[in-house]
Amino acid sequence: MRRPRVGHIEYLNCLPLYHGLVRDGAILDMDLRQGTPAELNRQLLEGRLDIAPISSIEYLRHAGELLLLPEPTVSSDGPVQSIALVSRLPAAALDRRPVALTTTSATSQVLTRIILSERYGVAPCYLARPPDLQRMLAEADAALLIGDPALRMLWQPPPGLYCYDLGQEWQLLTGQAMVYAVWAVRREYAARAPHAVAAVLAALQRALRYSLEHLAEIACAAARWEPLPAAALERYFRTLRFGFGPRFQAGLLEYARRAVRHDALSGVPALEFFVPPSPEHRPGRHNQRLDG
Amino acid sequence: MRRPRVGHIEYLNCLPLYHGLVRDGAILDMDLRQGTPAELNRQLLEGRLDIAPISSIEYLRHAGELLLLPEPTVSSDGPVQSIALVSRLPAAALDRRPVALTTTSATSQVLTRIILSERYGVAPCYLARPPDLQRMLAEADAALLIGDPALRMLWQPPPGLYCYDLGQEWQLLTGQAMVYAVWAVRREYAARAPHAVAAVLAALQRALRYSLEHLAEIACAAARWEPLPAAALERYFRTLRFGFGPRFQAGLLEYARRAVRHDALSGVPALEFFVPPSPEHRPGRHNQRLDG
Repeated sequence: MRRPRVGHIEYLNCLPLYHGLVRDGAILDMDLRQGTPAELNRQLLEGRLDIAPISSIEYLRHAGELLLLPEPTVSSDGPVQSIALVSRLPAAALDRRPVALTTTSATSQVLTRIILSERYGVAPCYLARPPDLQRMLAEADAALLIGDPALRMLWQPPPGLYCYDLGQEWQLLTGQAMVYAVWAVRREYAARAPHAVAAVLAALQRALRYSLEHLAEIACAAARWEPLPAAALERYFRTLRFGFGPRFQAGLLEYARRAVRHDALSGVPALEFFVPPSPEHRPGRHNQRLDG
Repeated sequence: MRRPRVGHIEYLNCLPLYHGLVRDGAILDMDLRQGTPAELNRQLLEGRLDIAPISSIEYLRHAGELLLLPEPTVSSDGPVQSIALVSRLPAAALDRRPVALTTTSATSQVLTRIILSERYGVAPCYLARPPDLQRMLAEADAALLIGDPALRMLWQPPPGLYCYDLGQEWQLLTGQAMVYAVWAVRREYAARAPHAVAAVLAALQRALRYSLEHLAEIACAAARWEPLPAAALERYFRTLRFGFGPRFQAGLLEYARRAVRHDALSGVPALEFFVPPSPEHRPGRHNQRLDG
């Protein structure tokens, strides 16, 4: 029995969770592999990871192979601070104009299409580009950035540009919360190693609780290495939502329905969750090993 | 200022150190990247890592670009349990016979040449091959294995094969300790970020002390995931040496001199160590950040 291969997003949004996994020691029982969301999506879908965060749109497209964990998510209920459309023109003036979408996010690409179409009534010409704002704006009138580059930009907005926080825009459009990433386990791994999945889930839940109780301290420690001061980091961490309660499940399904409308998804799947096995049936194998 | 990029050997021999880095929380201030020794060698020499364990022979070949850390090392003073020559014939009968050397280790390849030549007086025909014992022995009369595969094999030796522990063989040949890997920092990084290097060194030293005080507990925790029982793991951890005192420096230099004799190294370099800067000159930058 090998350690479960668990993905971890190497962006700031998951740094509190990482602190929790380290402080708890749970990281010692995982084969934790850090990567960008796009890398983790691919590795989970190819079976090179057992459990990982996955972008919402990719989960929705591959729900037949995956089960959701009941926590955590990367979500927002209003502004998100780290998903930004930066534009030379007001959004309503982007019809038929080139808009560069970062190749690092599929979920936010679809979110941008939904918002520009349904909230601003425009149909730009979309280009997929690496996340380099200067190059993007050399080719296009607007650019979608996500993650740490978006965060740094919204913290010090470039003069003369319109900045849209897409978490806030989503809420203004739909009244809903927005789920950017969920944690999922491959169905075949959940069937084969349900106790290992339950242990990872419990560790993620402990890490989440730890991180929510220590956000100020985590922001202070992280600010030594990040390009934002501790106060800005803490504000960002407190802006994010990590739960997956009914309001967030509803937000995810609303996103799925609109993604279908924009031909980014073939249908809305049922949200199927991993259910931990009852502890009474836990095999004694590990304990036997410890006696060895 | 980014986190120092620090390499970590993903083999069992460095698992106690990993427990120390996690339990201490020091891992949160590093960009820790796990890999095989060959991967870490390459990444350090290419400048994709700042500080990393590096195989002794590769350090000796590139000492001009690197400074040694005064701790830790991966060493032995007698048997090592995880570097094994497995042979159908007694070693003294391997003259002109094919011997397959695992491509995963450069240091042990040279060590094998030294021992077979100087202790057994034989000159086999060497082949470099991936570490698959069955395939190696289909092509050759003997095979060099290192790391976890060697450990598993020495724990349950295949019947009818001669097994040589190369740490023990080295000591029988030279009377010396053997250093397999050292920790080194790129000279340009040490010049640019001496305080960051000092912090990583201090963290490695704390992790080393922690691990030596908790070997039984670490072996128990690790045995849940490893193919060896806790008692065997603990015995292995206690067999290894992690220091770099005079006896180990002498062993490394002896190895260098013999490697030169076998045309595996052009000359014996002086062992130059990183010296931490005095704490009085530490810049206040980090503290200013924490107030931000």
